[in-house]
Amino acid sequence: MSAERERLARVALAASTEPGDPRISGLVEELGAVPLHEHLSAEHDIGGVLSDVSARLKVADPERDLEQATRLGIRFVIPSDDEWPSGLDDLLMAPLLQERGLPPVGLWVKGPLRLDRLAASVAVVGSRSATSYGADAAADLAAVVARSGAPVVSGAAFGIDHAAHRGALASGGESVAVLACGVDRAYPAAHKNLLDHLAAEGAVVSEAPPGWSPTRVRFLARNRLIAALTRGTVVVEAAVRSGALNTANWASRLNRSLMAVPGPVTSAPSQGVHQLIRSGAATLVTSGAEVLEMIGSSGEHLVEEPRGAVRPRDRLSVRHQQVLDAVPVSAGARADSIARTAGLGLLEVRSTLTRLAGHGLVEHTEDGWRLAALARTH
Amino acid sequence: MSAERERLARVALAASTEPGDPRISGLVEELGAVPLHEHLSAEHDIGGVLSDVSARLKVADPERDLEQATRLGIRFVIPSDDEWPSGLDDLLMAPLLQERGLPPVGLWVKGPLRLDRLAASVAVVGSRSATSYGADAAADLAAVVARSGAPVVSGAAFGIDHAAHRGALASGGESVAVLACGVDRAYPAAHKNLLDHLAAEGAVVSEAPPGWSPTRVRFLARNRLIAALTRGTVVVEAAVRSGALNTANWASRLNRSLMAVPGPVTSAPSQGVHQLIRSGAATLVTSGAEVLEMIGSSGEHLVEEPRGAVRPRDRLSVRHQQVLDAVPVSAGARADSIARTAGLGLLEVRSTLTRLAGHGLVEHTEDGWRLAALARTH
Repeated sequence: MSAERERLARVALAASTEPGDPRISGLVEELGAVPLHEHLSAEHDIGGVLSDVSARLKVADPERDLEQATRLGIRFVIPSDDEWPSGLDDLLMAPLLQERGLPPVGLWVKGPLRLDRLAASVAVVGSRSATSYGADAAADLAAVVARSGAPVVSGAAFGIDHAAHRGALASGGESVAVLACGVDRAYPAAHKNLLDHLAAEGAVVSEAPPGWSPTRVRFLARNRLIAALTRGTVVVEAAVRSGALNTANWASRLNRSLMAVPGPVTSAPSQGVHQLIRSGAATLVTSGAEVLEMIGSSGEHLVEEPRGAVRPRDRLSVRHQQVLDAVPVSAGARADSIARTAGLGLLEVRSTLTRLAGHGLVEHTEDGWRLAALARTH
Repeated sequence: MSAERERLARVALAASTEPGDPRISGLVEELGAVPLHEHLSAEHDIGGVLSDVSARLKVADPERDLEQATRLGIRFVIPSDDEWPSGLDDLLMAPLLQERGLPPVGLWVKGPLRLDRLAASVAVVGSRSATSYGADAAADLAAVVARSGAPVVSGAAFGIDHAAHRGALASGGESVAVLACGVDRAYPAAHKNLLDHLAAEGAVVSEAPPGWSPTRVRFLARNRLIAALTRGTVVVEAAVRSGALNTANWASRLNRSLMAVPGPVTSAPSQGVHQLIRSGAATLVTSGAEVLEMIGSSGEHLVEEPRGAVRPRDRLSVRHQQVLDAVPVSAGARADSIARTAGLGLLEVRSTLTRLAGHGLVEHTEDGWRLAALARTH
């Protein structure tokens, strides 16, 4: 009963305030949602917020809102629920709270995925005007992350957001969209199918009540949620001033892993990413495996660094390497000259050259011995 | 007279030993070049090197070598010369000396550029199998560096080396090739014109005496010189095991600035570069200006970070921004709904909306007010 009162009070507060308003979240922390709602409903001004919320609070009907939402398959998750994602509580500790920084009053959710599963999730965010390179990189990376069992989280915009969901879903993994508008709305409209798919197989999440439009403030508030809900954020292509960099900034403040995928230096959408790496804010990542290593508990995911193929010379004895090292790369040299260069006896060098030729590492030309193509890497 | 004896002794030692042999360089530091040469010529074994050098020392003829070199426009620069590049002395301090680490006995040089000018130079190195992206990035960057007056230093290989020289020369700047073979030889042969051009306008430099072939050991020894001669090294495209990474490693050991240009994560030649950045060994750079900032004395070169264009909303009053922030991005909303969202009075919101429409930031549709394309960036 009291759980239901709590939920209704939070629905009413969510309906009467802008997402991320730090005054409301702060008062909820301080007084509790039910007393705050009662005070404001009785037109007691608390924390100076009454004038801003009273008009909306008067028309709020939380029972009806919840009922309508339930009919649409939408639930309202609050901190006392088992699935409440504990990552959001870190917003209480973030150093810069003034800018829409506190936890949401609750989250509207459509979809089977329980929000507490997001503790292991990875955000993949980036430019709406992504290049095909960026979109492919985001999709590949999201596919590897999702296949490992970690949900992928993003917005629902064109470009990187869309590519991340596409990659995660194609790999059979889970994907979650966090919106700036109500979870019953499709913005952009072209992504209605994608959002329906996510609601059917993963989740669509928003702090804004059903029916609400996206506004700039709601996008900014949404970005903090993406950072807080996930274990790490990967930025793939972000222009210098972009929402993705705002999310990145939140990830840093919240001590989440911040990762960034580089691109050509000639590509404008990679500029913001390169700044993040240059400044030391983000770690450069080139693959989903590297992302998993960053967010994994130590040893959980170990990436094998690309090492290059073992070369034929690696398998030679030191003596043979010494001879090989003295063989010219281009025009050939006679065995005695190679022996002098190597500081070894002529007989030994001759027999070694013959063996190296047998391995295809040196070749005899009319000018003498020289490296074969196989060994010509320095 | 004694300067000439010193030079001849060093020519003879250079002719009898492999480039970078740390035993010889160590003995030169310890005893001086003239006494060492005398001892070895008299077949006294010093430091256990006699057996390796005696055969070559017997046939060495430094007067003839110097004379022949002079006829070809080649000089032999030794530490007592004014133009001796002091950066090479840092090789004495490098932490890992065992691997061909000491300063050269002398440097063979062809070209008008004085080597002491290299104190301000920048090495641009990378893959021989560069992509056109990498080659263009190297050329652009080298052009900016050279135009600023700093010489560019590289090898003479295909790919990035060639692109770096091309960029530096095209900008009217100076460029220097450091070779693994004698400075009178063209390796690869296809770069004969390039090397002639560098010898005419910049310099071609080698530790290996004229006439000598390139070998793997000489390439490795050459790499340490590129790092030591320059103020910083920029790696553009380097496969995971490549000579460029060997040069990068030397630059780190010598406390030079190590910089790296990222590329697509799908590009094999960028893998080694991304590893350098990931490991923290190299700083990501995207332009010649950022390179100059890294190597410049503080404040000498200040890069203006790309900031993105100032947006129309940046010029609005706070009140107007508040209204703008409450206008939906997609489907329109009525003024009273916007007023509730913004927490402002209806009359004020109406007049503000009209003004914002005048600035082209919002538009009125049949559904109501919504953001115009100009303002639709979040």
